[in-house]
Amino acid sequence: MAAWGERLAGVRGVLLDISGVLYDSGEGGGVPIAGSVEAVARLKRSRLKVRFCTNESQKSRGHLVGLLRHLGYDISEGEVTAPAPAACLILRERGLRPHLLVHDGVRSEFAQVDTSNPNCVVIADAGESFSYQNMNKAFQVLMELENPVLISLGRGRYYKETSGLMLDVGAYTKALEYACGIEAEVVGKPSPEFFKSALQQMGVEAHQAVMIGDDIVGDVGGAQRCGMRALQVRTGKFSPKCGA
Amino acid sequence: MAAWGERLAGVRGVLLDISGVLYDSGEGGGVPIAGSVEAVARLKRSRLKVRFCTNESQKSRGHLVGLLRHLGYDISEGEVTAPAPAACLILRERGLRPHLLVHDGVRSEFAQVDTSNPNCVVIADAGESFSYQNMNKAFQVLMELENPVLISLGRGRYYKETSGLMLDVGAYTKALEYACGIEAEVVGKPSPEFFKSALQQMGVEAHQAVMIGDDIVGDVGGAQRCGMRALQVRTGKFSPKCGA
Repeated sequence: MAAWGERLAGVRGVLLDISGVLYDSGEGGGVPIAGSVEAVARLKRSRLKVRFCTNESQKSRGHLVGLLRHLGYDISEGEVTAPAPAACLILRERGLRPHLLVHDGVRSEFAQVDTSNPNCVVIADAGESFSYQNMNKAFQVLMELENPVLISLGRGRYYKETSGLMLDVGAYTKALEYACGIEAEVVGKPSPEFFKSALQQMGVEAHQAVMIGDDIVGDVGGAQRCGMRALQVRTGKFSPKCGA
Repeated sequence: MAAWGERLAGVRGVLLDISGVLYDSGEGGGVPIAGSVEAVARLKRSRLKVRFCTNESQKSRGHLVGLLRHLGYDISEGEVTAPAPAACLILRERGLRPHLLVHDGVRSEFAQVDTSNPNCVVIADAGESFSYQNMNKAFQVLMELENPVLISLGRGRYYKETSGLMLDVGAYTKALEYACGIEAEVVGKPSPEFFKSALQQMGVEAHQAVMIGDDIVGDVGGAQRCGMRALQVRTGKFSPKCGA
């Protein structure tokens, strides 16, 4: 294995995943991952550009940043690339009016979006709001559309909370894809557009950036397919069994 | 197209799907499909053997038969091939102790099954019981097993109730398959074993039988792969758009 210095030669920017890298969510807001508060502080004191690239879709950026600041992180909303604001841009560009299958905590991100007479469905990590009734409503909306459009904020399989592993949005997206015979459009990691927007916001080229995450598919695979380097941490949902 | 007489030459037995063919479920138990009560009565008066082959996994056979008799059908429990009793046989044969993600209405079918210290998950059409909490519990049970076994009672995409289309067990099975990185074993249509057990119970060879259903995959495709003939009715979930 190449030495660290060699592997990180030419790196000008660092993209950090949040859940499983900075903290594990859970009761009372969650807990920081050991050493991460100091690591972020050191990165920010260095010559490297730092940006946070998350698939968090249960909380608004404001809420998420408030929570992380409370845990001791130096972070602001403007430093976070998250799927809900990226989805809002796409909805506006394409004249899409979503039926929202989302957690109440992220609904404020869609406040400016027209949701009347829906012509698509946006699905996010709705958590407890993934009731049968809510899933069935989204399914029925899609089945009534001539060209059903399903936009999924990430397609993670699961994430780790302090109480254990939790089903993520990807599982429910699969359910709707199968029931409707369609394929969702993913906004969030591992979508190349999502990584590219984070790089652009940071002002760094792909070959000058490294992504640090706990998800072998969403973080590591996605970043590498964009020409970035990537490091998988052994925290969060990482398991020695499957590496994911 | 060949004439009816020719297409049904040599047929000795008829397998009838129930949901979407005999009735549409819904409020107050559902409604019979026009003409079906009389059609079943005529079949039973004929020289043909008749058996009911259903993927119904929300209700026990007793409950289902009671409902259908109330709607005017001449039907008894012994004439019904359903996935829950078939799953119980498999569980017993393989020493499997299931965690049950099922509707309360079908739980009685599993009364004789050991569910302590689960080493597999059985998923059925749980309807409103497909809460996030219940799905997550099943997911966690699977993730803790060294060799996760997921048994799915059918893998239908959706079915029709009087109030509209409803997500079926297949969508939720897909969700767990994706989250856990596994493949479920299907008990029910279109599994060949399931059709074979129905044929055996009827005492008829595959080439002598015709399956009548509203699902192009579960009923028609499954039966044809077993060497049976099949007819798709234009009731239930049938849609001229996709034929399913």
